Amino acid sequence: MTSTEEPSPAGSAHAGPLTITQLAELAGVSTATVSKVVNGRTEVAPETRALVEGLIRRHGYRRQRRRVGPAALVEVVFHALEGDYPVEIIRGVDRVAREHHMAVVISDMRRRDNPGMGWIEDVLSRRPTGVIAVFSGLTEAQRDQLVTREIPIVMLDPSGDPGPGVPSIGAGNWSGGLSATRHLLDLGHRRIAIITGPGWALSSRARLDGYRAALDLAGVPADPELICRGDFLIEGGLAQAHRLLRLPDPPTAIFACNDGQAIGVYRAAYELGLRIPDDLSVVGFDDLPPTQWAVPPLTTIRQPLTEMAAAAAAMLVKLAQGEPLQQYRVELGTELIIRGSTAPPAR
Amino acid sequence: MTSTEEPSPAGSAHAGPLTITQLAELAGVSTATVSKVVNGRTEVAPETRALVEGLIRRHGYRRQRRRVGPAALVEVVFHALEGDYPVEIIRGVDRVAREHHMAVVISDMRRRDNPGMGWIEDVLSRRPTGVIAVFSGLTEAQRDQLVTREIPIVMLDPSGDPGPGVPSIGAGNWSGGLSATRHLLDLGHRRIAIITGPGWALSSRARLDGYRAALDLAGVPADPELICRGDFLIEGGLAQAHRLLRLPDPPTAIFACNDGQAIGVYRAAYELGLRIPDDLSVVGFDDLPPTQWAVPPLTTIRQPLTEMAAAAAAMLVKLAQGEPLQQYRVELGTELIIRGSTAPPAR
Repeated sequence: MTSTEEPSPAGSAHAGPLTITQLAELAGVSTATVSKVVNGRTEVAPETRALVEGLIRRHGYRRQRRRVGPAALVEVVFHALEGDYPVEIIRGVDRVAREHHMAVVISDMRRRDNPGMGWIEDVLSRRPTGVIAVFSGLTEAQRDQLVTREIPIVMLDPSGDPGPGVPSIGAGNWSGGLSATRHLLDLGHRRIAIITGPGWALSSRARLDGYRAALDLAGVPADPELICRGDFLIEGGLAQAHRLLRLPDPPTAIFACNDGQAIGVYRAAYELGLRIPDDLSVVGFDDLPPTQWAVPPLTTIRQPLTEMAAAAAAMLVKLAQGEPLQQYRVELGTELIIRGSTAPPAR
Repeated sequence: MTSTEEPSPAGSAHAGPLTITQLAELAGVSTATVSKVVNGRTEVAPETRALVEGLIRRHGYRRQRRRVGPAALVEVVFHALEGDYPVEIIRGVDRVAREHHMAVVISDMRRRDNPGMGWIEDVLSRRPTGVIAVFSGLTEAQRDQLVTREIPIVMLDPSGDPGPGVPSIGAGNWSGGLSATRHLLDLGHRRIAIITGPGWALSSRARLDGYRAALDLAGVPADPELICRGDFLIEGGLAQAHRLLRLPDPPTAIFACNDGQAIGVYRAAYELGLRIPDDLSVVGFDDLPPTQWAVPPLTTIRQPLTEMAAAAAAMLVKLAQGEPLQQYRVELGTELIIRGSTAPPAR
């Protein structure tokens, strides 16, 4: 990488770094070409690029106050940067963004209901190509501010109703709740508990409704004692499982509504000396990578987070290019993945 | 986004969205003030902001081709966006970046040794405040390209030797390896195996040397059969643990060198019907959040990834501001976290 033949210096020896004009003179190419190399553009012959890079390495490059437009950015706003869920999302957005030479910008809302003060100002000043809001509701004011700047928004796994005309990508939550519960019914379970997500999360509500529908279709009455409100966190799953497993007539199976809560149920079973799946069957929701490594491996409902994120990014690209969307609300399918945490009930 | 037309006089009925000049006239404020509101700057009185936002909501805002400098970006380049490790890093960078109104940009190298073709061109065209390379070696050419553009680089948890003058943040890997092994020795173990990371990772080499030092100091000869090369992946931990546990004289304890490999060891024990910690003690390295939820909870060496990432970001801010660094290589301390996966050997 050091073998660059340098043309004889045009003029005197230079004391400091060179401007684009000086570099162009030395290399015997146009300033436009040097500018392309400096700014990382691709349409330059490899030899020319090597020549200019060599000169820059040797002499240094002095940046002139240049005036250019904004970088192409996709802003991804997370409700919480915790666990494996965000990584799955980022990977999907990155895949599409890379193709379009867009940078992926991450913001962490730290479990607040909406991004903190100053966040929207920073976003507006960056003028991104678009914003993907993950499992979060921006405030109406924030949405307005983005819309009036013609910055498109896509809601990914929306926690609430995205509102009319707001594009969103979700998963088949109701169907997933139905499949999870049906799988347990098919194994012979009748005392099936559910630990839902927080009350404000529509995805949780849909999973609960799927659970109810499966019980209803099987003619098994839903026992209100077996329906508990969780928070989609491991700790919540742990606390609710303790409550459930200490009931006089405890459940033989728990549908945990996300993988985090399922991990909490595993812990509760461990603390109470119950074996999974012999004494208790557990079903999660998400299929995050670690679930296959749980002991025993977790039976769960797969929602294709990476594909959902890629679809959201692709939607954003379309919107930014002014193309019409075929659909404003897209739901990708969920799938039951049977592993080692479910078995017929012992009693 | 449409072609520019001459503004119609303020006060008359507007067919389309308004320019900054028109908004200023309508609101009775300066164009500078409207510009501040539009670009999300903070130094505007709340009432004025509300007034201008109201007008924008009502009439729309027509962006003029504006000429501004680049957005303030921190580029974080990951060797692989997998598991909980990246999230810990992003959270730390985000904390510092937010304070400085900088956006955090993520790139995924997808386990390649260096970012793909086109990546560096995209970075250069974005002209970020700086680059944090996580557990990865940029090529020398890529580093040169950044350096010549005066874009500072900080290596975080560097996989190789960062090279002279390249700032880096790491953890006390040698001390961590020493502590992990001493803990097992103190419990009475003598057949202690280690599953290292990949050979090119200096952090892994340091942990191995700490392991050797602990054995040596305790007068326990290191058995080459108990030292295996891993890859820092769950699958690698699983494969190596199977090999170790099938030896004629198997180890009673395994130091897994990262939490992922420890999870692989858990799986191997499960498959072979061995109980942790009764039949086998396991120590990890990292203390990623899920390890406390493993069954049993994992004894591990905590490396403060979020703090390391925050320190790297703070270093970058200093470099970008042209301030001198007190130190170019910083190592944050590691700490033994004793949980439920280690106990005295049964035999």
